[in-house]
Order: sequence, then C-alpha cells, then structure tokens
Amino acid sequence: MRVFDSHAALFTDYYQLTMAQGYLLTGKAEKKTVFDFFFRENPYGNGYVVFAGLSDLLEVLEKLRFEDNEIEYLGSLGFGTEFLRYLYNFRFSGTIHAMKEGEVVFPYEPIVRIEGTLFETQLIETILLNLLNFQSLIATKASRIRFAAGNRRIMDVGLRRAQGLGGIQASKAAIIGGLDSTSNLYAAFRYSLNIAGTQSHSWVQSFTDELSAFRAYADIYPENCVLLVDTYNVVMSGIPNAITVAKEMEGKGQKLKAIRLDTGDLGYLSKKARAMLNAERLEYVQIYVSNQLDEHLINKLIQQGAPIDAFGIGTRLLTAYDCPVFQGVYKQSVAGDKPTLKYAESFAKTTLPGLKKVVRFFDSMGLFDSDGIMMDTEEDIEVFYDPIKTDQQFRVGGMTGRPLLQKVMEHGHIIGTLPTPTESAKYLSQRFSCLPPVCKRFDKPEQFKVGISPSLMRLRSFLFEQVQKETITKK
Amino acid sequence: MRVFDSHAALFTDYYQLTMAQGYLLTGKAEKKTVFDFFFRENPYGNGYVVFAGLSDLLEVLEKLRFEDNEIEYLGSLGFGTEFLRYLYNFRFSGTIHAMKEGEVVFPYEPIVRIEGTLFETQLIETILLNLLNFQSLIATKASRIRFAAGNRRIMDVGLRRAQGLGGIQASKAAIIGGLDSTSNLYAAFRYSLNIAGTQSHSWVQSFTDELSAFRAYADIYPENCVLLVDTYNVVMSGIPNAITVAKEMEGKGQKLKAIRLDTGDLGYLSKKARAMLNAERLEYVQIYVSNQLDEHLINKLIQQGAPIDAFGIGTRLLTAYDCPVFQGVYKQSVAGDKPTLKYAESFAKTTLPGLKKVVRFFDSMGLFDSDGIMMDTEEDIEVFYDPIKTDQQFRVGGMTGRPLLQKVMEHGHIIGTLPTPTESAKYLSQRFSCLPPVCKRFDKPEQFKVGISPSLMRLRSFLFEQVQKETITKK
Repeated sequence: MRVFDSHAALFTDYYQLTMAQGYLLTGKAEKKTVFDFFFRENPYGNGYVVFAGLSDLLEVLEKLRFEDNEIEYLGSLGFGTEFLRYLYNFRFSGTIHAMKEGEVVFPYEPIVRIEGTLFETQLIETILLNLLNFQSLIATKASRIRFAAGNRRIMDVGLRRAQGLGGIQASKAAIIGGLDSTSNLYAAFRYSLNIAGTQSHSWVQSFTDELSAFRAYADIYPENCVLLVDTYNVVMSGIPNAITVAKEMEGKGQKLKAIRLDTGDLGYLSKKARAMLNAERLEYVQIYVSNQLDEHLINKLIQQGAPIDAFGIGTRLLTAYDCPVFQGVYKQSVAGDKPTLKYAESFAKTTLPGLKKVVRFFDSMGLFDSDGIMMDTEEDIEVFYDPIKTDQQFRVGGMTGRPLLQKVMEHGHIIGTLPTPTESAKYLSQRFSCLPPVCKRFDKPEQFKVGISPSLMRLRSFLFEQVQKETITKK
Repeated sequence: MRVFDSHAALFTDYYQLTMAQGYLLTGKAEKKTVFDFFFRENPYGNGYVVFAGLSDLLEVLEKLRFEDNEIEYLGSLGFGTEFLRYLYNFRFSGTIHAMKEGEVVFPYEPIVRIEGTLFETQLIETILLNLLNFQSLIATKASRIRFAAGNRRIMDVGLRRAQGLGGIQASKAAIIGGLDSTSNLYAAFRYSLNIAGTQSHSWVQSFTDELSAFRAYADIYPENCVLLVDTYNVVMSGIPNAITVAKEMEGKGQKLKAIRLDTGDLGYLSKKARAMLNAERLEYVQIYVSNQLDEHLINKLIQQGAPIDAFGIGTRLLTAYDCPVFQGVYKQSVAGDKPTLKYAESFAKTTLPGLKKVVRFFDSMGLFDSDGIMMDTEEDIEVFYDPIKTDQQFRVGGMTGRPLLQKVMEHGHIIGTLPTPTESAKYLSQRFSCLPPVCKRFDKPEQFKVGISPSLMRLRSFLFEQVQKETITKK
C-alpha cells in the first residue's frame, strides 16, 4: 500500500530539477555525497521529538521513477533532451541509515543519513522533508496527548479539519505517537490502523426524537453502542434517554458501551453524567468526551477528577494547532570524499560535517542518559561537548552506548520489512518509558544531553574557520 | 487530472459508514435532505474568506464509488451484506449549488448547498469539509499576502514544510488566492500552475567557490538566472560575485535576472544590494527575498522602502502558520420536505433552516454593499436582519442584487466545465477589487454586512422555540 499512487518523482521543488540538470551538464550529477536530516528545535516547547514518516519515505524512494507523461511535461517546461533521457533511466540507488520510526530524538542529531549521487540526494530533498517533518510533528503532538491521557483511551477524529490530503499521514502519525484509534477510514485501510467512531448529531436529528434515535442505534449496534447525548440538552434529555436505552439493553442481555459529550463544560458534565448513570447502577457505561481537546485541556480535566474514559481528539492534533511547523532540515555533510558544512555566522546554524553516527547512552536504571554524535569510524568516546555551547561537556565513561542509526536501504533497496505504524507505536512506547521524566513535562522540560565528540568538534572548527578566512580574504 | 488517484470513498470518518448502515436498515437511506456548508468566523482575524476547493470536490463526487477491495475491507470491519451490496451500487446522485471558487465569502452564508439522499449527503461530509476547509484557509492567507505585496511578484516555495500530501492542495489554493507561481512541481503538473524556482545553497556549495557556481548557473540558464547570494557573505562575497557574473553576461548580450537573499535583515540587505547593483549600472537586476515571510513582514519591508521585486513565501503560507484551522461546518437544513435546524443555546451556534439562497448587493460605485440570505423562493427583500444580533437591520432597497449560488452539479453530474485555479484566481482578483477597503485591512477589519430575510428569521425563531419547548416539557 503506497502513500503515493503516482507522480511521487514530481513531488519536489522545481529548482531541484533545474539544479539537477545543472549538475548533469557540469559533470557533477554522479558525484558521491552525503546528506543528513536533522532539526534544531523541538516543537511545542517540548523536550523531545518522535521521529515518524520513514516507512513512507523508503517506500517512495524504492519505487521512484519518472513516468512518460511526467518527462513529457518536464520537456514542455524547457528541460533538455540529455537531462530528460537521464530522468527516464533514473532509479534511486542511495544507501540510507536512519533511526527507527517511533524513536525519541533530539536537536542536532542526524536522524537520517543519505549516501548517494548528488543528483539523487538533491532530487529527494523536498519529499523527504515533507514526509518526515509533518509526520514527526504530528507524532510528537500525539505523544504529548498520550502522556497527558495516561491509560485512558484516545481516538483521532480530526480528518474533517485536517490539512487536505495531509490528513492521511496525520492520522497515521497520530497512531505512531500513541493514539488508540482513528476515525480516518482511508488511513486505516491503507496502513492497517485501528478504527473507531461513535455517532453524530445528525443521526439523532434524523429521527423524530432522541429516544428513538438512541433505540435504533442500540438495535443495530448492540455490541458497540456509544450514544451522543448533547444534541438537545445533556442533563434534561440526553442522559435520561441514554439511561432508558441502557436499561432496555440490559433486558436483552446487552450492555450500553458509553455516552459521548461534545459540548459544554466537559468537567462538570462528565461528573454529572457519572452520577446520573451510577444512580441507576450503570457504572459500566463509559463516558467519552470530545470538543477542541488537546494535552493541556486533558491535563486540566484529569486534575479536576473528571470521570472520563475516552477522549476524541480532532483539530488540535491533526493540524498541530499550537505549532504547525516542524523545521527539520536536510544538509550536505560530505561532498565527494571530503567532509563539508553549511557555514553560518554561529555554531547554532552551522551544520555538522562528515559521515557521522549517533550513540545513545543508558544509565544504570536503564534510562536514557545522553546521546553522542561522532564520526562514523570513532569508538569508545569518553567525553562529549555541547554542540553550541562548546565550553560545556559531559562524560559517558562506563555507560552502555547503543548506536541509533541503522542501515535501512542499500543501493535503493529496502532492507528487511518496514514496521507498521502499530509496531512503531509499540517501539515508541517502550522508548518513551526510558526517557527521564524531567524531559517529558510540558512546562520548560529539561534539555536532554546531546553532545559531539572531540574529533567532530575539531573538524567543524577547522572547516568553520576555513570559510571565515576565505570570505574575508576574498574581498 | 484527479485529486485522488483512488479510494476517495474511504476518505471519510468511520462513523459516517456506521450511521449510513443504520440509515439503510431503518429505511432512511434514500430520504431526501439538504445540507449547507458554511462557517461562523473568519480566520486570521480577517474581514473575509476566499472560497476554494470546489473543483476538487466536484471531481471527487462525480467519480465516487466503492471499489471491490474497499468493500471487502469494510466487510472485514463487520458491515453487513445488505449494506455492502448497497455500497457496491452506490453513485453520488446529489444536486449541488455553490458559490464560485475564488468568491469572497462571509460568515453564516451557505456557500455550498447539497441536495440528495440522507445516505449520500452524510457519506461526503468528511471529504467535503476536508477539501473546502483547508483550501479556503490557504487561499485566504494567500490573498492577504497578495494584498500586502501589491504588484510585486510572490512565489510559493513551501512544499518541504507543508502538511504532507496536503501540500498539493495548499500550493493550488495559494495560486487561487493570488500567488504568481509555485515551486511545487506536482501541483503544477496536476493543476497546470505557473512554476518558478531559483537555486539553493547546496548548488553554490557543490562548486569549489561561489563565483564558479554562479558562472556555471548563468551558462546553463542565461534566460532565467537568479543567483542566491548569501551562502557565504552577502556583501563581501555574494553580491560582488553576482556583479562579476552580470557583467560577463552583458558581454554575451545576456542579462542577469535577479539575486536572492534568504537570510539576515532583508530590509537592510536589499537596500545595500540595490545600491551595489546600481553603482555598477545593473538597475535591471531584480532583488528576490525569502525566509519566514508572511503578510505582516512584507508590509514592514515595503514600509521601510525595501527595494524588493519578488517574495518567496514558504512555511507561513502553506501551513497557515498563525491560524492553521478553518472551522467550516456542514449542517442539515432540510429533512424530507421539512426545514430543520441544529439547535444550540444561542443563535450564534444554531443553524439556519430551510432551502436558502444568497444575494449580493452592490452600491452605486459597484462595490459590495452587503449579502442577504433568504429562502430559495423569496424575491425582492428590502430589509435584512443581522443573523445573531437580530435587533440590527439594514436596507437594500434600490440596490442591484445578484444571486451567488449557482447549480454546479445535477444528479451527480458536473454542469459545464470546472474553472482552472488560474481562472479562479482571476475571478478572485476581480471580486476582491469590489470589496470595500475597510474590510481588507489586517487590523480589526470592518465586518461586512450579512443579513437574513424576515421570513428566514421567523422560521428560525419558530423552530428554535419548538426545540426549547420540547426539551423542557420532556422532563
């Protein structure tokens, strides 16, 4: 099941192709190069990012080719015959190392490392960023919501407010991030996700009265009956009618599963509903709520002791409402066989040069202690330096270190089987339990320690100063 | 060229199908009904919304059907045989009236009116909201950016930060809203949009020095050469090298088109660049800028007198950064042959019942004066009431009124030819020129007058009070 039915090769910026033609005509197209995908800042003021989107990317890359009508289109834009012929024969043949989908990742770490020709590594920049940035953004938001909700059930119901077709990937990323189910049938079909849904106000309105609407639904779906109780008046009509139906169901040996509240003060109404249900010995009937929920509102409801069993999450998750952008970038680190960097006036925006790997260190409790970025060939590093404030260092001596980058694609072919979103969700859940609690809190979380090795620091300094000198002597 | 290659019928919420099966089993599936698409609040604190997404929706609806593997999937979820057989034969056969794509629209107006069976009108709710909400959101943002930029060129370059596949529709909606071009090759291919792009830092870095990179680009693209001058140092290296190349091009009878600035203080740097270029008699070389731009920053740059010819707009447009949600809703207005409403405790959230139309009134200068919402059969209304604050009214006597809703689909078939995004952009541009300037400003724009007819107001009051009474007497 592919994320793109067709035309994935065109899912790129026009300048990638004008530059690609340039590379071809200047004899650089086949030059070997390495690019890193990384980011500089956690979204939402969060303490970490959940990496997502990798499986989609690898599927796209393995199948990437230019179809006849696309080449014809590019010809109509003025691209030359030599270039079009090159595109016709093009297949992505790069080798990719990446962290696992669902990994807990941090600023400045190379999360994906792509080795290939200059042509192919540039061509895929746009689709790579598009797929990884958005899905990591949503998976991270979802993991915050999961953290706030604890063990309560959380359901994605946001497709109608999602960003167009982006809703497909958003629902999938929400599952990776920790939601239990989605209402998005398309995403569920394509990615084998758990599906769930309740009923809408229009169901209730399509009957002459609320009680008839509830009865009809219970008749058809006795196993999975969730009644929406706020079409008219929750306390005076919705809950009493739901109780009537619940009693009728009991008479048939059935059980009403839940009621849903979608408006009003969800804290007050859920308590009121719980009391009304319990007074009728319907303790087993669960309470679902929805309406503009996010991790902060869920936190508040739980703090108020609202007896809520499940949350429906829409708009604020799938649109990443409070931070709709994840600024992951894709930068060259090796050109030919030479390490290279993108120079900026500070270390914060200058990239890390060379072929690198990342090792995660674990403390004696099995919790994440820190991550070290080092040259691919380095082993047994004892000290790491903060990548920006290089006067700060930390030691990892004696700790277990495990490499995070694994080879996932070799010469254009996927290695092994791609994880399903459900498998990635499970991986995240396990990794998240190793993240120190201070890094999980929403309010000013502690910065997780990420450092660069002494050799990497020296290499960066050397190249950094080289550019500084060149720029100055040039004038 | 379709927006969905396949599986559009599954692009819906699961509960639409559980309810649909319920409608079928309770004999309601074929009941006639009418739904309206409308919204209650302008995004961005704006004075209007640009309606977009209609063509995609109509294309999807005309081709909507359940494929064999989808029906099989739904069977695996537990849907019954009768329902699956119904889906197998399903085609959308509704009739749709809508405003034109690119229309300037306002809160509470029915923008799209769908008449059909309860089954089909409910099934399409999710995809309708998804397509219309997101594209209207982006087209509106784009029109604000167009308004700020005046006649300067503006280019969409945001695909890498767009919301996954939503980027396809975002780039298209950006063109409808008034951008000149997109870098999104996929969207350009599918929707025949103008394409444009420049070059990236990695082009410059792939050469041993900046000057060689510039020369190579000018050699290959002499007609359309835009040089990115901030890879190393704008003033000390980028602009001097661009000047060298411009002079060399002059020697060959060619002209450097532009330089691009992508970092730093764009106001200061564009002035500095202009001065340096002019000092070499390169007045014709244009200045492009990019980097986290939106309508507010463009406004500031223009106020500072920054000599900028073109803006590249990325992240903040395609993600609708400062307001990533447009809360358009889809509500039933007629059930069978009876007008109906969704009751809420205030008029603001109660829907407008019945089969309605919208008329736009023009003042003697040809500017929009006001919009009136009335029953479909009404003519020659003189007075309209504010839909919320019903003590406020306005008169339209003597003004020319033109109906805004046109029949665009009859019994499932598109009427006429769908406009291209470029045609819709032209339509918007013409309509925007009729919008009173007070409604265009960013800071507290004046509310455009939208009213409901006396009959519509009476109908709403009647149904509103009916629900109030029923809810109270029920207990």
